Amino acid sequence: MNYRQRQQNLMRALDKQKLDAFLVAHLPNVGYLSGFTGSSGVLLAASPRWSFYTDGRYAEQARREVQGARIVIGKGSPLAAAAAELTKLAPRTVGIEADRLTVSASHMLGSLLPKRTRLVETNALVERLRMIKEPEEIERLRAAVLAGAALLAPAVKAIAPGVAETAVAAEIEYAARKAGANGMSFETIVAAGARSALPHGLASSQSIPRQGFVVLDFGVVFGGYCSDMTRTVHVGNPTREMRALYEAVLAAQLAAIATVGPGVEVARVDAAARRSLRRGGWARFFTHSTGHGVGIEVHELPRVARGVTEVLQPGMVITIEPGVYLPGKGGVRIEDMVLVGQQGAEVLTPAS
Amino acid sequence: MNYRQRQQNLMRALDKQKLDAFLVAHLPNVGYLSGFTGSSGVLLAASPRWSFYTDGRYAEQARREVQGARIVIGKGSPLAAAAAELTKLAPRTVGIEADRLTVSASHMLGSLLPKRTRLVETNALVERLRMIKEPEEIERLRAAVLAGAALLAPAVKAIAPGVAETAVAAEIEYAARKAGANGMSFETIVAAGARSALPHGLASSQSIPRQGFVVLDFGVVFGGYCSDMTRTVHVGNPTREMRALYEAVLAAQLAAIATVGPGVEVARVDAAARRSLRRGGWARFFTHSTGHGVGIEVHELPRVARGVTEVLQPGMVITIEPGVYLPGKGGVRIEDMVLVGQQGAEVLTPAS
Repeated sequence: MNYRQRQQNLMRALDKQKLDAFLVAHLPNVGYLSGFTGSSGVLLAASPRWSFYTDGRYAEQARREVQGARIVIGKGSPLAAAAAELTKLAPRTVGIEADRLTVSASHMLGSLLPKRTRLVETNALVERLRMIKEPEEIERLRAAVLAGAALLAPAVKAIAPGVAETAVAAEIEYAARKAGANGMSFETIVAAGARSALPHGLASSQSIPRQGFVVLDFGVVFGGYCSDMTRTVHVGNPTREMRALYEAVLAAQLAAIATVGPGVEVARVDAAARRSLRRGGWARFFTHSTGHGVGIEVHELPRVARGVTEVLQPGMVITIEPGVYLPGKGGVRIEDMVLVGQQGAEVLTPAS
Repeated sequence: MNYRQRQQNLMRALDKQKLDAFLVAHLPNVGYLSGFTGSSGVLLAASPRWSFYTDGRYAEQARREVQGARIVIGKGSPLAAAAAELTKLAPRTVGIEADRLTVSASHMLGSLLPKRTRLVETNALVERLRMIKEPEEIERLRAAVLAGAALLAPAVKAIAPGVAETAVAAEIEYAARKAGANGMSFETIVAAGARSALPHGLASSQSIPRQGFVVLDFGVVFGGYCSDMTRTVHVGNPTREMRALYEAVLAAQLAAIATVGPGVEVARVDAAARRSLRRGGWARFFTHSTGHGVGIEVHELPRVARGVTEVLQPGMVITIEPGVYLPGKGGVRIEDMVLVGQQGAEVLTPAS
């Protein structure tokens, strides 16, 4: 990973916003910029040097991982330690992550900083850098996607009437760990029968019925990068309506994928899925957005949704995941990860 | 669960702080007060009625789960929907969770509310109610602790030289899911050999060496409540120093547990562990606090740490988890969950 390049990119973004310093407290951002993977740390981007603050639990780990910043091990909160350094540096402006930092933390900072220093609220400065993946990140994402997709077979094998949804999740997660995953990228969704109509039906103690859809939505963290994939299978013989439902979602997904490419506004991708579903009258049961970026976190920019004007660029990796949910009856969602290339798009998730 | 009582308790807390309304955005707090278990929702506590806001994905789930509040399904952000209601109600003061809400969200609220309405920053209002567990919560916690403790046997069975730490985590998590856990309460720690000196050594691809400690720190979410437990085992014959280290940590843990009881300041519990470790000269390698509350979240109030003046009360459930970490050599941590009773304390975690 090219931490030096990332840090330079951030410095350039700070220059544009006329920020003398920047406090990074959102841990995935801290990790992206410095390599730190622990659960407590703050990065201060400032001239003449960057500093990284953590507590005693992470002293050893920080020394092994952190790049491009001096390491400061403190007794109190890392944020307060960074504020103390800012008091010495006394820059005119310090950017904060307004969409990550809590009101309390921001006030604490404000009370510690010298009068001369002004806190400036920024949004998604680092997250926007993270949208465009480096070649090494794309390789990591490819590996994560393959590791994730390999979990479908044990999941499908475990599915049978009478089996608890959690038992299916158990097989998925066990296979993930055995394959060396750091963990799951989000809580595994196994939603069977009427529960398949819940877009976020976390695996429950309920059993799989004799008849109906089972939505499987799962992902791994592998080499620090996330996968995200949804497949919907049917237990028993599907009715004609359920068959039509599945076909409609698949068509919508393919229609959305077909629009993906550099220079395309993400709202157009979302619209393509909705337009496709409108034909069969399913569109009003598609109650969420079409997708999202994926990387270090499972939900990253850009949001692929109505009204979002972000334009796809080479190096972005997004999900395409339309779903249709008929309350009380059942639902279908199909999700792949797609890499935006120089020309078109590459579906990273293997078909099945 | 007694949602009516919880809501009344919050109203009483709001009265004390002279708050006309309160916005609950931290999801575990939303769930505690309303029963909602989804991942998007805001609760507005206001007279004459409470309202719960979520989006289309959770329409069905909200109707099944939410108690004591009308349900509003919106298209935009739940927080913006709650702000719209506040505009109608126009209370004088609205409390926000300053230690949970982001700077951006707070500004968004401020911009939407009528001039008459003032945002008031509060800290841990709901979290403080959650410190004292109801009888049903204690039963849930007991069940979670037992489900968690049952994972130690498969973990220990999996431990052998050459086995990857992630493979041990796989067995722990598989057994958890098979037992019906909703998931793990935090990322499983399996830290072997020199890695046992990392207080937060998440299971890695490294193999267990022929000789050394293995720290196992894991917990389940079971019936919506968390368990948290650490055991340290040794592979091969421990040296005299390593044996002394283990004995010292165990003694410190028992010393801390012995101080737990109603009316005791938590700093005294922390001090007991440190005093015990000081005897053997280990105290400076105990680099974190002694424990924390556990409930819906794995880290709750009170923090059991130096300088915390909180007094233990019946119904609190805390961890006691001193650890000693010798950089490059290895570390030991031992952790149990302890219930504060009317008289003394009850160790919930089964011994082993």
